[in-house]
Amino acid sequence: MAHIQLDNDLPGIRGLMAYRPEIAEPLNLLAETLLRNDNNTLTRGERELIGTYVSYLNDCFFCQNVHGALAGHYMQCDIGEIENIKQDFRSAEISPKMKTLLSIAESVQKGGKQVTSAQIEATKAEGATDIEIHDTVLIAASFCMFNRYVDGLGTWAPQDKQFYVERAPRRAEEGYQSSVYK
Amino acid sequence: MAHIQLDNDLPGIRGLMAYRPEIAEPLNLLAETLLRNDNNTLTRGERELIGTYVSYLNDCFFCQNVHGALAGHYMQCDIGEIENIKQDFRSAEISPKMKTLLSIAESVQKGGKQVTSAQIEATKAEGATDIEIHDTVLIAASFCMFNRYVDGLGTWAPQDKQFYVERAPRRAEEGYQSSVYK
Repeated sequence: MAHIQLDNDLPGIRGLMAYRPEIAEPLNLLAETLLRNDNNTLTRGERELIGTYVSYLNDCFFCQNVHGALAGHYMQCDIGEIENIKQDFRSAEISPKMKTLLSIAESVQKGGKQVTSAQIEATKAEGATDIEIHDTVLIAASFCMFNRYVDGLGTWAPQDKQFYVERAPRRAEEGYQSSVYK
Repeated sequence: MAHIQLDNDLPGIRGLMAYRPEIAEPLNLLAETLLRNDNNTLTRGERELIGTYVSYLNDCFFCQNVHGALAGHYMQCDIGEIENIKQDFRSAEISPKMKTLLSIAESVQKGGKQVTSAQIEATKAEGATDIEIHDTVLIAASFCMFNRYVDGLGTWAPQDKQFYVERAPRRAEEGYQSSVYK
């Protein structure tokens, strides 16, 4: 049960957004811009994967399953593969550039000052642009917010991981600003 | 020097926002709504104080000085008093309710799951409403994002704390969506 009385039975961040719609608006706009805007050289799948990995590191069940299912949907791989990436991205079959970006996300999750110049150089050496590095840091940072918001207020989450997989196509179609999230 | 080439010499988050204006927009809207919206029973000073304290815990020099100066401006106290609150809010001359809210913010900074039912009950016993608890958690969580964004990209910050104090009245007047931040 959530720490506060939400007067709705929606899970995770959806219950919070229905409770406080005026604040849901900028949060949804942020998610839409960061994770879905087409004017971005990181794919939607790559961006969702960064958010998924940070949510895993923050042990946020709701976020890692919502966004893991979306990453799997966009990357056209099954949820088991996403699980493998979360648990050991360095051995996973993803691009060397993506591995360096996930390494930066891993540092951001610990704290902003954990990101080193050597990590940045390694990422650039794999072809990442400054904007890709910028967006990776902000996506990782934003999930440090979303995860704390969801768990800090003690929201509930469906425990069946298949629930998230089944909903991902519709979430992908509707985006973060649809009425489903309001 | 920042980890990426920003092509401007603005400090902290301002340089990042000028570099990536399409993402600055939702971030500024979030700050404006959370920290300044008048439809809120927490004062602007109290909300800035929560952000300041979390920025202090995250050791983000830019954010703790920008928002500390704003908190001092709204609360009509000098920056030394804000420093004392940051270092030991439990002994500071702030309301018992504010102490319980800062205690929740302190837990959120560590991680969402660190917030306990006992903390929530203690806060309610001091008269905090559910919306105040909600907003405190989200303000604390959002500064875990802002701080990581600012430091994760290695931005620079003016070192003279008086710089922030002198700018606070104008920042308070203009808000987070003025052209200064774009």
